[in-house]
Amino acid sequence: MCNLLIWTIEAICFCITSFLFTEYQYVGVFMVAFAILIFLFLGSVEGFSTKHQPCTYDKEKLCKPAVVTAIFSTLSFLLGAITSVVSGFLGMKIATYANARTALEARKGVGRAFIVAFRSGAVMGFFLAANGLLVLYITINLFKIYYGDDWEGLFEAITGYGLGGSSMAMFGRVGGGIYTKAADVGADLVGKVERNIPEDDPRNPAVIADNVGDNVGDIAGMGSDLFGSYAESSCAALVVASISSFGITHDFTAMCYPLLISSMGILVCLITTLFATEDFFEIKVAKEIEPSLKKQLVISTILMTLGIAIVTWTCVPSTFTIFNFGTQNVVKNWKLFLCVSVGLWAGLIIGIVTEYHTSNAYSPVQEVADSCRTGAATNVIFGLALGYKSVIIPIFAIAISIFVSFTFAAMYGIAVAALGMLSTIATGLAIDAYGPISDNAGGIAEMAAMSHRIRERTDALDAAGNTTAAIGKGFAIGSAALVSFALYGAFVSRAGITTVDLLTPKVFIGLIVGAMLPYWFSAMTMKSVGIAALKMVEEVRRQFNTIPGIMDGHMKPDYATCVQISTDASFKEMIPPGALVMLTPLIVGVFFGFETLSGVLAGSLVSGVQIAISASNTGGAWDNAKKYIEAGASAHARNLGPKGSEPHKAAVMGDTIGDPLKDTLGPSLNILIKLMAVESLVFAPFFAAHGGLLFKI
Amino acid sequence: MCNLLIWTIEAICFCITSFLFTEYQYVGVFMVAFAILIFLFLGSVEGFSTKHQPCTYDKEKLCKPAVVTAIFSTLSFLLGAITSVVSGFLGMKIATYANARTALEARKGVGRAFIVAFRSGAVMGFFLAANGLLVLYITINLFKIYYGDDWEGLFEAITGYGLGGSSMAMFGRVGGGIYTKAADVGADLVGKVERNIPEDDPRNPAVIADNVGDNVGDIAGMGSDLFGSYAESSCAALVVASISSFGITHDFTAMCYPLLISSMGILVCLITTLFATEDFFEIKVAKEIEPSLKKQLVISTILMTLGIAIVTWTCVPSTFTIFNFGTQNVVKNWKLFLCVSVGLWAGLIIGIVTEYHTSNAYSPVQEVADSCRTGAATNVIFGLALGYKSVIIPIFAIAISIFVSFTFAAMYGIAVAALGMLSTIATGLAIDAYGPISDNAGGIAEMAAMSHRIRERTDALDAAGNTTAAIGKGFAIGSAALVSFALYGAFVSRAGITTVDLLTPKVFIGLIVGAMLPYWFSAMTMKSVGIAALKMVEEVRRQFNTIPGIMDGHMKPDYATCVQISTDASFKEMIPPGALVMLTPLIVGVFFGFETLSGVLAGSLVSGVQIAISASNTGGAWDNAKKYIEAGASAHARNLGPKGSEPHKAAVMGDTIGDPLKDTLGPSLNILIKLMAVESLVFAPFFAAHGGLLFKI
Repeated sequence: MCNLLIWTIEAICFCITSFLFTEYQYVGVFMVAFAILIFLFLGSVEGFSTKHQPCTYDKEKLCKPAVVTAIFSTLSFLLGAITSVVSGFLGMKIATYANARTALEARKGVGRAFIVAFRSGAVMGFFLAANGLLVLYITINLFKIYYGDDWEGLFEAITGYGLGGSSMAMFGRVGGGIYTKAADVGADLVGKVERNIPEDDPRNPAVIADNVGDNVGDIAGMGSDLFGSYAESSCAALVVASISSFGITHDFTAMCYPLLISSMGILVCLITTLFATEDFFEIKVAKEIEPSLKKQLVISTILMTLGIAIVTWTCVPSTFTIFNFGTQNVVKNWKLFLCVSVGLWAGLIIGIVTEYHTSNAYSPVQEVADSCRTGAATNVIFGLALGYKSVIIPIFAIAISIFVSFTFAAMYGIAVAALGMLSTIATGLAIDAYGPISDNAGGIAEMAAMSHRIRERTDALDAAGNTTAAIGKGFAIGSAALVSFALYGAFVSRAGITTVDLLTPKVFIGLIVGAMLPYWFSAMTMKSVGIAALKMVEEVRRQFNTIPGIMDGHMKPDYATCVQISTDASFKEMIPPGALVMLTPLIVGVFFGFETLSGVLAGSLVSGVQIAISASNTGGAWDNAKKYIEAGASAHARNLGPKGSEPHKAAVMGDTIGDPLKDTLGPSLNILIKLMAVESLVFAPFFAAHGGLLFKI
Repeated sequence: MCNLLIWTIEAICFCITSFLFTEYQYVGVFMVAFAILIFLFLGSVEGFSTKHQPCTYDKEKLCKPAVVTAIFSTLSFLLGAITSVVSGFLGMKIATYANARTALEARKGVGRAFIVAFRSGAVMGFFLAANGLLVLYITINLFKIYYGDDWEGLFEAITGYGLGGSSMAMFGRVGGGIYTKAADVGADLVGKVERNIPEDDPRNPAVIADNVGDNVGDIAGMGSDLFGSYAESSCAALVVASISSFGITHDFTAMCYPLLISSMGILVCLITTLFATEDFFEIKVAKEIEPSLKKQLVISTILMTLGIAIVTWTCVPSTFTIFNFGTQNVVKNWKLFLCVSVGLWAGLIIGIVTEYHTSNAYSPVQEVADSCRTGAATNVIFGLALGYKSVIIPIFAIAISIFVSFTFAAMYGIAVAALGMLSTIATGLAIDAYGPISDNAGGIAEMAAMSHRIRERTDALDAAGNTTAAIGKGFAIGSAALVSFALYGAFVSRAGITTVDLLTPKVFIGLIVGAMLPYWFSAMTMKSVGIAALKMVEEVRRQFNTIPGIMDGHMKPDYATCVQISTDASFKEMIPPGALVMLTPLIVGVFFGFETLSGVLAGSLVSGVQIAISASNTGGAWDNAKKYIEAGASAHARNLGPKGSEPHKAAVMGDTIGDPLKDTLGPSLNILIKLMAVESLVFAPFFAAHGGLLFKI
């Protein structure tokens, strides 16, 4: 068993590392090309002049030359990209080792396995949050040596950090999402449906690719994504603050409020983990896992509310002014406290609603499972309806956060609300990473031919993991919506726009085309998964049919070819959706100008967030409906089962359809809305100077 | 055979009539209640005062008292509702008789059957267009007796006509959609999938319900829907015109420009039909049908461009001014011509793109069919991706229409662009109604045990009908988008708003919540279909299991119970989505006021149109992918078939999932976006006077 275990882990590690290095080569080329683009575009704003210019917001002061800010923006872009890549890479390293350790600990009981899986997730979460914050803080201080008190230029240059983080996240989410689901769908369709062998059975040629995919997509992708959100919302808050009275009175402590909130968040999450560890020793049965993870969320939210109060009342002056599209609004510090808190609590609500819609402990998923009685078609219809329905409360939560924080502190309020939601990121990432870690522990146990009992324990961990992964995704999407809106506000402020009037044709066509972009993007990514899965299915079928002895375990299947199919598909297919996201703001900004671009950003935000939430939850619900039937924990569930029954087959079908929805589409759409917004923000000075060519003619 | 045929037709007619009369009872109650609401809300604007008031736009003139306009609005609401109901009812009568006649004509050949089916569709199309126009024209002239030259009040009262038409359409589309798909999904899942009996086999207990449903949903629903769009875009154009210089210089001919465009449209469609009849005699083989129907669309568009030119240059002054949110824009008549034409041609483009994505003559559907090789899951993934992709070009077409017509003639331009798109409504309805007529002809042939040859011919007609139905839906959605935007403009003009600034929290939360509403609505309708289909499946299974002799044809199944299940589901389940659509504008307007309502309308418009198009096309593509495999017309198709093969089973699964998407969800969403906009328009004076309670406190 031990040899097999080591072999399995080594194989997975090797595949991951080789995938990542190939990915980084692609990404490296992109980074260099885009860095040059940033320099050329931003440098050209003042015609590459090295003279000091009057500042945009404080005309009496002289600001640093645009060409230098272009250089610093390029630098911070590269820094953000590298930090994101490092975060993803190290997160994966942690996760892969955690997989094996969890599988081994599962021999001692479900409680022990849980602690290892959770703690590994927590290590990853803390590392990511702390690393992102540290690099950002150091960068600000280094840049400050040159910029001195020109905060307008300083924080304009810093926005590149967010763009770098998010563009790497896109490759992680899209490329990783296609990789993992091509492997997963392919493995499931032939292995589970046609050949009736269990999930993660080593006889399945796609099994290694599937396992690698889980790490690539869920761990590295998720890590980069949340890191991106985090970097972006900090940048958005800093940009708005830099042109507000924080910037003018030069209160550096108050200016760093966004960073202080995040630091407090790390502290709070640490305390929460300690709190929970007391409880952990009590976990004996699987059904305690989900409540315990939910408790983590609730405790961290309550503690963080206190933390926000401390930071707000100690670091922020009791009254200050905030830039609000041309005017300066007076804000009291208790209002700022409410802004951050409303974001924080909205995050919790989104988490709880997501759990309700994707956990098989509640009626929505049970109804979906029940609809499998009449076959896959009704399962799909019910699942889609569930996903659509699960959008309602999160959207109201986001809308209320926007309304409260916007009313209290304009765009700065939105940005800090987003930071509030992300302040418990370490806990969020811990419970999110826990899911794929236990999933893969199960996979490794199966592949290493460990005893059936261990597989049962990891399965129990995984069922809770599905729900927490869905919570993590809900969280990522909710914060992405707030962050995008904050970036949108920063972009509009930076561009010097004071109104975006829907009643002008330029804006309205932007809005409707923007609302279409997530569909275009979804069409590309879904089809990519479909095509790659078709290839995978054919390859797996071919191996089963042509290599004798696979089914009885005498012959090892050819895992490498399957890994290659996923890898190739992932690189080839991530280019068109990536290009759509990266080029749209540039094309719209250059040819149609600001107003249309504002419309596009708003449209893609309000439309994308809905698809993202519904796709994630539909997929999560199908997955758990299947697990509900398989586990057979209630009379109702046993009535639908056992494995292999007609309802179970229908449930497996739903699960397969849901895979690309929840792991490719939903998470990628996050990035779409964020990345377009941050890119527009970075290029705002260029669009202001040279944008809207088409209308100028 | 004859006896059986007569029995079948009588049974269907009886069920339809009894369904409609029950529906009209429900609808009658709603109509009366809503009429009272309209009177109370609008009457309270000036506190039920019977004194003349200064006009809103021309403060020097006295306008009729608000309470009288409330009475006239209520009257025109009732008139619109009744006209819509009559249109739907008579359309269905025409269609039911056409079904039987088509089946009988099919004995003489596919060409003859085609002519009957198409002509019946045309009769319905012309009747609807002419009836809608006539009633509107008479109403305007009757109201004018009282209003005299107070056109502001006159056309404000006329907007009730659009609301009446559209609210009936909602019941038709939602109720009809649930009815038809509950029956269809239920019949298919047990009959085709479990029992392996053909579609429309008289042994299937749900077969009568299925046939009734096709008429209720596709004919009556579609008729009411397009009538509603038509009435609404006319009203939107008239309202904007009435406060423009048309209204001020009192040029009644120019004022009636929208009606003249529609009249010209009827004439052009008539000529197009004659044109086409020459071709019709040549139709010998089934594959000529689709091109011939497409030719109808192209010819009518070309002729109509000429027609628009004639109307524009003869009836409209060469220069006039148009109200544009507070200012009056000078417009030249050639610009108006371009506005109408751009709408018209955008409609054609949408039609052609829809055909490309849903006809099995082209690669997208063939790819979907091909993906059935690996099972239902990949079929669903590819189908969803196809639907998402099919949104791109229609949205660009709509965006360009909006941009051109808005730039040339502000909101009036949008309204006439929508009318331009709808001007060929008679042809559109003819080729759309052709689909369900031939579908049901096939059903009747099967039920009346007519020869197999006849069924083959009606199947050939039906395959083309699926595509034309999708074209009709694309058309309905495209025009709904333009109409809603026109209504939106009229609402904003009427409310006296000059900007809708996205950078205010009130508007932005409206936008994001508005974009969520189509999802909420979709969740309700999809789940309704799912629940009703579950019941239907259980009833059909019960009958097969408990009534001996059904399968060998000795015993008649109990059709009535199945009809009852569909009827009950339809009435019970249409209330929540109906309430969502009807109450949202009222609640938002009363409590949150204008700005938020503007945001909600814009959000639901830009988000709803995408789901509607993608849902319709996904469903259409799955249906035709299945037909592609069944027909086996190419080597590729034969490779996937025959009926009963694994790929075919996967295709049937896709078709079943697509049914509620294309026939319930897509069409109902049309209504959602239009109805909320027209309702806001009608209640605009009330919101202006008493809205936004929450912010006033």
